[in-house]
Amino acid sequence: MVAPPPVGPPRFETISFLSDYGHADEFVGVVHSVIRSIAPAVRVLDITHAIEPYNVRAGGLALARAAQYLVPGVVVAVVDPGVGTARRPIAIEVGGGQSYLVGPDNGLLAPAVALVGGATDAVVLDRPEFQLESPGSTTFDGRDVFAPVAAHLCNGVPLRRLGTPVDPVQLLPGLLPVSEQMPDGAVRAEVLWVDRFGNAQLNVDPDQIAGWPDAVRAEGTGWSRVASRVTSFAQVPTGSVGLLVDSYGLLSLVTDRSSAATDLGLGEGEQVLLTPVEGGGAARGATVNVTLGRKAQPPSPPGAADGPTTTNPES
Amino acid sequence: MVAPPPVGPPRFETISFLSDYGHADEFVGVVHSVIRSIAPAVRVLDITHAIEPYNVRAGGLALARAAQYLVPGVVVAVVDPGVGTARRPIAIEVGGGQSYLVGPDNGLLAPAVALVGGATDAVVLDRPEFQLESPGSTTFDGRDVFAPVAAHLCNGVPLRRLGTPVDPVQLLPGLLPVSEQMPDGAVRAEVLWVDRFGNAQLNVDPDQIAGWPDAVRAEGTGWSRVASRVTSFAQVPTGSVGLLVDSYGLLSLVTDRSSAATDLGLGEGEQVLLTPVEGGGAARGATVNVTLGRKAQPPSPPGAADGPTTTNPES
Amino acid sequence: MVAPPPVGPPRFETISFLSDYGHADEFVGVVHSVIRSIAPAVRVLDITHAIEPYNVRAGGLALARAAQYLVPGVVVAVVDPGVGTARRPIAIEVGGGQSYLVGPDNGLLAPAVALVGGATDAVVLDRPEFQLESPGSTTFDGRDVFAPVAAHLCNGVPLRRLGTPVDPVQLLPGLLPVSEQMPDGAVRAEVLWVDRFGNAQLNVDPDQIAGWPDAVRAEGTGWSRVASRVTSFAQVPTGSVGLLVDSYGLLSLVTDRSSAATDLGLGEGEQVLLTPVEGGGAARGATVNVTLGRKAQPPSPPGAADGPTTTNPES
Repeated sequence: MVAPPPVGPPRFETISFLSDYGHADEFVGVVHSVIRSIAPAVRVLDITHAIEPYNVRAGGLALARAAQYLVPGVVVAVVDPGVGTARRPIAIEVGGGQSYLVGPDNGLLAPAVALVGGATDAVVLDRPEFQLESPGSTTFDGRDVFAPVAAHLCNGVPLRRLGTPVDPVQLLPGLLPVSEQMPDGAVRAEVLWVDRFGNAQLNVDPDQIAGWPDAVRAEGTGWSRVASRVTSFAQVPTGSVGLLVDSYGLLSLVTDRSSAATDLGLGEGEQVLLTPVEGGGAARGATVNVTLGRKAQPPSPPGAADGPTTTNPES
Repeated sequence: MVAPPPVGPPRFETISFLSDYGHADEFVGVVHSVIRSIAPAVRVLDITHAIEPYNVRAGGLALARAAQYLVPGVVVAVVDPGVGTARRPIAIEVGGGQSYLVGPDNGLLAPAVALVGGATDAVVLDRPEFQLESPGSTTFDGRDVFAPVAAHLCNGVPLRRLGTPVDPVQLLPGLLPVSEQMPDGAVRAEVLWVDRFGNAQLNVDPDQIAGWPDAVRAEGTGWSRVASRVTSFAQVPTGSVGLLVDSYGLLSLVTDRSSAATDLGLGEGEQVLLTPVEGGGAARGATVNVTLGRKAQPPSPPGAADGPTTTNPES
Repeated sequence: MVAPPPVGPPRFETISFLSDYGHADEFVGVVHSVIRSIAPAVRVLDITHAIEPYNVRAGGLALARAAQYLVPGVVVAVVDPGVGTARRPIAIEVGGGQSYLVGPDNGLLAPAVALVGGATDAVVLDRPEFQLESPGSTTFDGRDVFAPVAAHLCNGVPLRRLGTPVDPVQLLPGLLPVSEQMPDGAVRAEVLWVDRFGNAQLNVDPDQIAGWPDAVRAEGTGWSRVASRVTSFAQVPTGSVGLLVDSYGLLSLVTDRSSAATDLGLGEGEQVLLTPVEGGGAARGATVNVTLGRKAQPPSPPGAADGPTTTNPES
């Protein structure tokens, strides 16, 4: 079907794969098959394929959360509403060749790239000899472009043979919502992610509420609750809401053995205002930005305006 | 638990696995475990396990779509409402031993077998020494029959040791719906597949509407829309319907970032009539059959009657 | 990220992994990545990740069903509502080192441990040098504790280096519901599991109704049906209910190509009373306990009381 596998040992042995393909169809399986055809020794690890269709933001956040745990190698990520249009298929080098990220140039890869230190090189994937033929159709680039390119990278094909170099600063940035410290000490936050268990992750680092009392008021559209700060789900009394440092180091609104998002009527992207209850211990220190993973983000732009703003994690 | 693994290198290193087992239970995991017990070096690639329960047609179509991308080796496919009855468990050789397909003899495997050139040998799986014991129950042949047999094939056990030879022409054929060119130039089609994104694949090759204008009327039960021919989802204006050559080379009804199937109220198996709008450029050439994948299908039976008919892809 | 992989060949090459993480998020993928970082040669087989959130009983039963088919090696199981509390993370040795089970000490592992012969050693996982750092958070022990420990076990790290020994009898037992033979010969059962297809597995061994006629009355809350004993789904007439020995050797209520659970309005944990129809052939022999898998369970406690009781499979 495709170019024969190389003779020597592969350069990388792992491809991490994230998409919005779901598991209802054979899309994921076909991508695995294409990779194995070209690079038989490579293991493909599925990060998740349940990203909401076309939701580039959710895909970028999931990839960023996973990034620090991924094995060095190649990452393929596909959430690609613009497939078949002028948006460019790209491959990005990070760490001077420690890893590569392959996918559409629509901001999906940018948060993860930023978290691992930024791009050290990039190409637009325009060399058909390293892709599958798909006569008459350009709707499944995961199969026809990204999977073959990732496999060839594993096989040791140099990045610059796979496409035309592009300056990484010209790639589409990812936009991460930044929480905002209000003049009265409150924090204006946003729900980044609602997980399977209904925990609602906020773009708030625990340092931002250091010194606050244990009781924190959380308010959204049409609701207001006092959440107690906890370190485990089980500490939240039934019917109450807790504020927990989650496994990625950010604050999450949680309940015990139920869905906080359902209880509060919260969805991804919604705004939440946090204020200390009793006012006493509110920290008024320097504004600290959202941290995805363990690497610090650059500071938010000075003079951030009235509502939560977005910033380019690569800027 | 089962026969010890072989000493030498395996004959095949990949088993591709499709079923209607879903992921809610441990069925898929147990099949993986059984294979690894018998053939530890083999990698199992999951094509999909979300075939609608008992839907042999949908399973056969998914397998056919995937077939051209699969790594040579062994395919296990299980959508098996007749498990435990007289329907036969079979293994089919294709390409003179290039690959094998293992599953129930209920038409599930037939479309894929036809696409890769037809069966060159086949056996009914009736040798218990190559299967797992399941005292008192014959309801999980994927675990007890198909997985062990596939693993033994990978280990180099010859096909004819695994069962009693059967003439491939005696296997149950798969029935693929054939679209029909009407006397007035219209095409009477059927929805083969609705994917996760709501794209509705028709059994129509783009050659069948070569020369048609860009606007094509699509009509079903209770609805009629003009679809414009597009090459990407993003070309479809919001609220409109597009007609796209999809990633398998067939025409699909699509919308941009929404579900065409939901918008039109379309489901798999429904009939759709396509007619050129303005009548001007309708092609009246020879009838061309549905092509699944890239290999041409045999011509449809002459004198095809009033409605869409089915044909055996192996005939 | 973590300790470098060992130089020699791994002690085990397979980790079997079950959880309630679902596939909507990146949890499963991150666990795979962590394992591959520490033990690159190990294959992770997913048993299932669709256990209902926090449902320790359902997770324990699924693991028990799968247990006899798993490859020797390490099992990681995580259904862990008490994460971050005083509940202990543990690793259990079975078969004198043939396999290890890793997870929370909340009864989840106990049924599977019992089925494979009981624990031969156990430790509480309290050595941070074999775990990932998760500053400020203890909510994702699958990633931070269980996955690294499982990988280190595969790499050959001795169990007792991973934690503090604990007497296996002090581990939380799993509670399996035991069916009850009534004085009038009826069997008071419980639905252990409803699978994707809607088959309702009862905690009844076919021996318990040996000698009964082919027609068996099944009664639950608000319904009563006569089920005929069958050996395949296809033998059940449309609209009727069958009683089948399922693929794990227990009796299941089934229908043909539809969901028995939906038809009867049955859910997991519900009670079902089985009585022979016509009274003639009811066996009144010794009470036989539920058998999960192929190994016999210990006898039920004498003097079992009025309703179905639970017993510790390890007792």
